[in-house]
Order: sequence, then C-alpha cells, then structure tokens
Amino acid sequence: MEPETKPRFVTTRRVEFIDTDMAGIVHFTNFFRYMEQAEAEFFRTYGHTLASTSEGTGMGWPRVAASASFKAPAYHNDVLDVRIFVRRRGFKSLTLQFEFHRGETLIATGQIKTAYCRFRPGQPIQSLEIPPEFNAMLGPYDAALDKELQRSESEN
Amino acid sequence: MEPETKPRFVTTRRVEFIDTDMAGIVHFTNFFRYMEQAEAEFFRTYGHTLASTSEGTGMGWPRVAASASFKAPAYHNDVLDVRIFVRRRGFKSLTLQFEFHRGETLIATGQIKTAYCRFRPGQPIQSLEIPPEFNAMLGPYDAALDKELQRSESEN
Amino acid sequence: MEPETKPRFVTTRRVEFIDTDMAGIVHFTNFFRYMEQAEAEFFRTYGHTLASTSEGTGMGWPRVAASASFKAPAYHNDVLDVRIFVRRRGFKSLTLQFEFHRGETLIATGQIKTAYCRFRPGQPIQSLEIPPEFNAMLGPYDAALDKELQRSESEN
Amino acid sequence: MEPETKPRFVTTRRVEFIDTDMAGIVHFTNFFRYMEQAEAEFFRTYGHTLASTSEGTGMGWPRVAASASFKAPAYHNDVLDVRIFVRRRGFKSLTLQFEFHRGETLIATGQIKTAYCRFRPGQPIQSLEIPPEFNAMLGPYDAALDKELQRSESEN
Repeated sequence: MEPETKPRFVTTRRVEFIDTDMAGIVHFTNFFRYMEQAEAEFFRTYGHTLASTSEGTGMGWPRVAASASFKAPAYHNDVLDVRIFVRRRGFKSLTLQFEFHRGETLIATGQIKTAYCRFRPGQPIQSLEIPPEFNAMLGPYDAALDKELQRSESEN
Repeated sequence: MEPETKPRFVTTRRVEFIDTDMAGIVHFTNFFRYMEQAEAEFFRTYGHTLASTSEGTGMGWPRVAASASFKAPAYHNDVLDVRIFVRRRGFKSLTLQFEFHRGETLIATGQIKTAYCRFRPGQPIQSLEIPPEFNAMLGPYDAALDKELQRSESEN
Repeated sequence: MEPETKPRFVTTRRVEFIDTDMAGIVHFTNFFRYMEQAEAEFFRTYGHTLASTSEGTGMGWPRVAASASFKAPAYHNDVLDVRIFVRRRGFKSLTLQFEFHRGETLIATGQIKTAYCRFRPGQPIQSLEIPPEFNAMLGPYDAALDKELQRSESEN
Repeated sequence: MEPETKPRFVTTRRVEFIDTDMAGIVHFTNFFRYMEQAEAEFFRTYGHTLASTSEGTGMGWPRVAASASFKAPAYHNDVLDVRIFVRRRGFKSLTLQFEFHRGETLIATGQIKTAYCRFRPGQPIQSLEIPPEFNAMLGPYDAALDKELQRSESEN
C-alpha cells in the first residue's frame, strides 16, 4: 500500500456491538463515522477541533466528498488500525486518505475531501482559506505528496 | 393495553437493515430514534416542528427523560405500528407515551418527557411555557388522562 | 444532470432532527444511510430485499465501495427527492447511482457498488452470480447505459 | 449521588461531532449508545463480551428495558466520566445503573436491564441463567446493594 516512510497519523478504533448488522459484520456507514473520528483525533493531537462555535458563529470543516472501498469484513470487537495521510492540500480544501487494517489484513480504504468554512445564522455557509495554524499541522504530512499532486496543487 | 377509545396518534415505521445488529434483531437504541420520528410526524400533522431556528435563536423540545421496555424482538423489514398518547401535559413539559406493535404482537413501549426551550448563542438553554398553538394540538389528546393524572397535573 | 428519459427509480426522504449536527446541516454520513434506504425501497418495489436469513444462512448485498459528493447543505425537515440509476451491472456486482434534490437544487450525488453474497456461519462470505429475479428487476434500467459501459460490461 | 465508597466501574467517553444535533448539544439517543459502550468496556475488563457467535449460535445480552434522565446538556468535545453500578442482579437478568459527569456537573443518569440469552437460527431467543463467570465479575459490585434490593433479589 503506502510505503512505511510516508508521514501519517495513526490511531485505533474498536468495533462496537452497535456497529454490526444482521449479516454479522460492520455496517459500511460506520467506516465514515470512524474516518471522521480519526480525523478529529488527528486535529486534536495538534490542538485543533473539527467544529467550534462562538457567539453564534461556527467554524468547521463540512465535507465536499467522501468515499470508501471495503476490502474485507470487520467484526464485533475488532481493533482496527486507522492510518491518515494528507492526500491533497489546497488553499481552501483538504483531502485526507484513510486506511483500516486488522493486523496485516487491509479492511478498508477511504478519502474525505473537506473545506474550511464559516457558519453564520441566516447566511450561506462561506468557504475560507485554511488558516496558518492548520497548515502548520498539515505541512509535515505533505512530504510524500507525489510530483503530480504538487503540480495540480500549485494550480489550485 | 390502552383502550381503543383513548385518543392517540398513529403512524408506522419500517425496520431498516441498518437498524439491525449481529444478533439479527433491531438494536434497542433505534426505538428511541423511532419514538422521536413518530413524535415529529405527530407535530407535523398539526403544522408544528420539533426544532426550528431563526436569526440564530432556536426553539425546540430537548428531552428531560426517556425510557423504553422491550417486549419482543423486531426484525428487518418489519412494519411497526407506532401509537402515541399524551401521558402528561404540564405548563413547561410534555410526556408522550409510545407503543410499538407488529400486528397483534406488542414489541415495545416507551415514554419521552420533553420541555419547550429556547436556545440562544452563548446563553444557557431556557425553559419556557408551552405556547398556545402546541396546547391546541395536545388538548384533544388529554381526554383520556385518568383522574389521578389530572390531579397531579393541576398541582404542576 | 441525467436526461429525464433515463430510466430511474424515484423516492423521497425527509431529513429528521437526529440527522442534523451542530453546524445545523445534515451530517454527511446520513446520505449513505439515505442511499441504502432508497435502494431498499427500489428492491422492495420489485418484491426483493437487501438481506434475508433462513436456517442460519444469509443472503445479502454487502458493499464493495461507496462514495458521495455534497453539493449543497440539506436541513431539518427538508424533503429530498432521491433518484436511483443503474450505473453498471456485472455478473456478480451492481453499481447504483444516486441523486438527491431539494426542488431544483442538487444536494448530493453518490454511488454504491454492491455484490450478491451468501453468509454461512463459520465460513467466509461467498460472492455469487446475481440471480435471475434480480436481473429481471434491473434489466429495464439498463436502457440508458452508454456504449462504453456496455462494452466493459460484456468483458466482465 | 452515589457514595464514593460504592463499588463501581469507571470509564470516559468523548462527545464526537456526529453526536451533536442542530441545537448544538448531544442528541439524547447517544447516551444509550454511550451506556452500551461503557458496559462493553466493563465486561471486557473482565475478559467478557456483550455478544459472541459460534457455529451459528449466538450468546448475548439483549435489553429488557432502558431509561435515562438528562440533567444538563453535553457538548462537542466534552469528555464525560461514565460510572457503572450494579443496581440489581437476578438469576437471568442484570440491571446496570449509569452516571455521566463532566467534572462536577451531573449530565445524565440511566439504567439498562438486560438478560442473558441464546440466539439460534430459526428458534425463539432463549433466556438462560447468568453463567458463573459473569457472576464472578459482578459479585464484588453487589456490596452496596441495599437490604431491600437484596430481599427482592432473593425472591427472584
């Protein structure tokens, strides 16, 4: 998959009973829940949060797109390794890539594209440039972005 | 259970695949989700909503308490009858009672106690008197409240 | 988007209060829940189900991949039109495409790739050919599959 | 609330973004999810699990009843202390009591009554006596059960 040398954030997630369905495996929607939780841990490790509100104005990271591929079933009580990579970083949006493993077994991969936005009562959601404090967090994870990505990045 | 003559609101809910767990039955938390959805349909039938926001101020019905008893398992694709009764109506709070049946089989019963409240940014949630338009909706459902309930009601 | 003449299944979904998050909009994971429910309605219209069990053996449609793009926020009480198209039909897998509209506004698009499988206790999940009764349901929706898709289909 | 000397199991739960609703607080259904997860951690600490399957036969703890009272709102990123007490232990059922605190603030209390059961394909769910290994886990938490409870227990 990804070379071990690529910078990544790593956490774990235990499959809860409620995450299973009558087929005995994790219902696929939960992987999107797991991705968001892992992302939140990544942010929190650097002192940031996915969403905050102050005086009625909210700042957050609504999703532009999300996808996942399911490679092998996950079961109740599985402890999944979750790895996060910075796939693409633009001025206003961020694409994170996720990999779930149970031991050596690849369970699922996924991506979330998200944009930094402001929420104000009675106004449309407004997309903003990603602030420096988030870029400081994300920068070290750019190292392994391949040349092609960096080129498209510079044109963003 | 409840005599047929007692005023009640009736709707149905189909059990979705995602609502099941690895034991092959509906995960108990979904009954609370079903209760809220039935309550929302009850409100909507009378032109009301469980939650609204305007200029940053929200009006809604946060929950004070919720309970349920599970009598028989429900399965994927079951279509449950959901009956709502007004159990108790106070100046600021409302207790609704719920019954779930699959045909003649009682599946679950539950109660939700909820309070009418205002949400303003940066301020504590404030409990308010239930407005007349909601009381107009609820009044006809009081008919069957038993004497004891009416007495405790009047002391509220 | 899609030409009106393309065969599709249409249903609706109302946004429930529980589907919202503190940003005041539908949490993105719910669109995957909505897609599965619409798919289930599509199947049910033709007398089929997404999952069944008999004597401990289950038949179902576990997901191979799922994706969505979020074009505009959806809000509490929105009634979304959900359109389903058959995007690709193979011997063992099926890709459905989804579009969510609120009136004229495109809210989200998505795809789910799913495989027909058998679940037996203590055995690996086994992928099977899609049975004739499902192909009879899906066939009429193939009409608008473009030539390129049909070619790749025939090589599947 | 409960005296500090009463035996209890303690864990924590962080409020995730997905757990919030448009009112900006934790949706009440999540407290039931939190209770089950805490219960699972309690069981796991002693080497047990809430649900298992083997050769198509499942053993688990379906819920007989669940209730909660909500004392103060919880918010995104709150880290809640979750305390579990054995409220009542019968031959076939177990009632656990839960308390959620954020620092000194009591957020919610709840109870789950659950029964030890066997699930076999095509057969009704069967209630069984709680096995010795679970009673060994639960026994030390009985210490503070009051006399009245112990009496009703012995009549069970």
